[in-house]
Amino acid sequence: MKIQAVRGTRDFYPEDMAFRRWLVERWREASRRAGFVEVDGPELEPLELYTEKSGPEIAEQLYWLQDKGGRKLALRPEFTPTLARMIASRQAALPEPIRWFNISRCFRYERAQKGRLREFFQWNVDLVGVPDEVADAECLSVAVEAMKGVGLGPEDVVVRLNDRRLLGALVQHLGIAEPRVPQVFALLDKRDKVPALALAAMLAEAGLDTRQREGLERVLSWRHLSDIDARERATPEVAAAVESLNRLFELLKDYGVAEWCRFDIGIVRGLAYYTGPVWEVHDRQGEFRAIFGGGRYDRLLGDVGGKPMPACGFGCGDVILGLLLEARGLRPEPERAADYYVVQADAVAWAEVLQVVRHLRGRGHPTQFDLKGGALKRQMKKAADAAARFVVILSDGFAADRRVTIRDMQSGEQRDLPLENLG
Amino acid sequence: MKIQAVRGTRDFYPEDMAFRRWLVERWREASRRAGFVEVDGPELEPLELYTEKSGPEIAEQLYWLQDKGGRKLALRPEFTPTLARMIASRQAALPEPIRWFNISRCFRYERAQKGRLREFFQWNVDLVGVPDEVADAECLSVAVEAMKGVGLGPEDVVVRLNDRRLLGALVQHLGIAEPRVPQVFALLDKRDKVPALALAAMLAEAGLDTRQREGLERVLSWRHLSDIDARERATPEVAAAVESLNRLFELLKDYGVAEWCRFDIGIVRGLAYYTGPVWEVHDRQGEFRAIFGGGRYDRLLGDVGGKPMPACGFGCGDVILGLLLEARGLRPEPERAADYYVVQADAVAWAEVLQVVRHLRGRGHPTQFDLKGGALKRQMKKAADAAARFVVILSDGFAADRRVTIRDMQSGEQRDLPLENLG
Repeated sequence: MKIQAVRGTRDFYPEDMAFRRWLVERWREASRRAGFVEVDGPELEPLELYTEKSGPEIAEQLYWLQDKGGRKLALRPEFTPTLARMIASRQAALPEPIRWFNISRCFRYERAQKGRLREFFQWNVDLVGVPDEVADAECLSVAVEAMKGVGLGPEDVVVRLNDRRLLGALVQHLGIAEPRVPQVFALLDKRDKVPALALAAMLAEAGLDTRQREGLERVLSWRHLSDIDARERATPEVAAAVESLNRLFELLKDYGVAEWCRFDIGIVRGLAYYTGPVWEVHDRQGEFRAIFGGGRYDRLLGDVGGKPMPACGFGCGDVILGLLLEARGLRPEPERAADYYVVQADAVAWAEVLQVVRHLRGRGHPTQFDLKGGALKRQMKKAADAAARFVVILSDGFAADRRVTIRDMQSGEQRDLPLENLG
Repeated sequence: MKIQAVRGTRDFYPEDMAFRRWLVERWREASRRAGFVEVDGPELEPLELYTEKSGPEIAEQLYWLQDKGGRKLALRPEFTPTLARMIASRQAALPEPIRWFNISRCFRYERAQKGRLREFFQWNVDLVGVPDEVADAECLSVAVEAMKGVGLGPEDVVVRLNDRRLLGALVQHLGIAEPRVPQVFALLDKRDKVPALALAAMLAEAGLDTRQREGLERVLSWRHLSDIDARERATPEVAAAVESLNRLFELLKDYGVAEWCRFDIGIVRGLAYYTGPVWEVHDRQGEFRAIFGGGRYDRLLGDVGGKPMPACGFGCGDVILGLLLEARGLRPEPERAADYYVVQADAVAWAEVLQVVRHLRGRGHPTQFDLKGGALKRQMKKAADAAARFVVILSDGFAADRRVTIRDMQSGEQRDLPLENLG
């Protein structure tokens, strides 16, 4: 009986795995250059780590199980709650600020579709302990550096940046009561994904009257911070949020990434824990869902039982980014499996073949040889399968003269040399 | 409320993560040098991938859940069944031999104890398509190279090597019927872990009479292949198994790893799918459980619905190996978070600090700076926290002369230089 893989998961055959490794190394490189250090936690966490903050409904979108002691354990859907738990449990001992990054396998029990899988990889960068906008700018610049690292430019992607305090104040000024704000945010987060009419109906259902819905439409039509009308700008909450955003854009200029970023009042992010600047990275053509999502979450540490600490960060999944790189022709060629492939022209003894193999591996060269021996033609085909750069040919004479023939598979050139000069 | 991590899982704070990364890179290096390529599969697999071969009891030792469609999904306890599934589903397209390695997170729902966790990492190397002993030797040599790579020598560890066909024939010659052999093997696999008396009782319970138990004891007392008595060696099954083992030891000599290996008739491996040579790596002092386990499994591909293919390989977990390296003082120093740390002696503008930071990061140097500014003394303390090798000091004059001061934190030396010569 052939057993199939679980829907929404992936098998990583060598080529797919090479791409995943390459992408993960670009993430790691961008994080390290900015002085972030890698951490990780379990993939299996108590379910309440997620339901505590997001409500019991979230369990519907997670894979979870009950253990023999009746405890509910979930497969992590994201890393941030784990990060908050880890910080809260060693808070006194960790030097501040905390600059951590993580590359996680995560799971979401959602409808599997293009760009949305049930098992995926996510890169997280978090900076904890700094309330100032410079921390938001620092994280954002790491995201931009990673995009440069995989070959994307500001003509391919755009960072759309907003502040929850700004939109929150504007929404409340429309007479929408504070307890209803999270629900309105959650609906606005779907704006790119559902038709305008459907969204209007959902907002009406959420209790917004016509005047409030029209007001919201007007707010969402503002393209620049300067579009915000004077009456709103005169209120202290809006004035403070605008000033903070202006400062953030100023810093992004200093980081040399301003051309990648623009203000977008419609960005809210779905997750409940954001408290300040929020941002997403989208492809300019609007072909795909968001590639990165991030923002400030100053209350999360307190919520998981720690001392409250200002914090910001972002996450970036491998699926959408992979599709975008594929579409732009930016997927790199996979590494070859072997630099050298050792073949026997005559029936050379294993002991001698292995001498040559050991010599090459000992010098750090990925080396394969034909484990079955047989006809030279067959062995040369295997060398080609392995995409080896060089083939080393051993003949009967090797035992006596310790010389081998090396063929450069790119140029076709071939020459004789003593074993000790090989590699 | 403080939420605790799940028992038997680990939080990887920066130091633990640095060790895990280092170990994983040593595994990767040993695999690649021998021309193996990396693959991976899902962590969530159909439960039947494990119960099909090992029986429904295995579910007791796994974490599994039922999805909304009633399908039973398990967190993988090991990679080999996934590997077999992946090969079976693309068998015609994959060039032979298949030389794959994998580094997996795996889960087992067992009693958590020293050296045995519920969530762990495992390195797997598999060579599929070659029936000859040279394939077993090739895999074993990769294991030895990895041990060298982490600093272990043949004085620290030993590869204990046997062949299931040999022990299988000897057990059957004692009159133990074939269907009972797997159960006897499973009991023998516990030999190092339970007292001799308890083992004898378990064997009696399994239906072995006194003569059979004594016979088994005599067989297990043989230390060398030459100890096997003449009557046994004269039977074709034993003769064939001994010949195969002799050839394998000959090849291990050619690979230069013979001094790491010895024959051990007591090695059987717990897993049901082994069919030929089986081996384990143990620390010489016998302080820990097995570090590596491997062997030949020529029937597994056929069992998961593929075309039968000869195969061999091994697995190595991170937990025991980590404990051994710790005990031998072989855990490396963690990498520093930052090579450079930029501080402000005066109230320098962010724009200028960021110029220096961008200059260093652009040249590939992990660079941090103090996101809060403030007193120079406080900033120097933060630089020390980050274990930065160099501190770069900016003063008021920087805007005009573009010169910085660099201090080597190891030697204490300090000098002035223009920004463009930095890094």
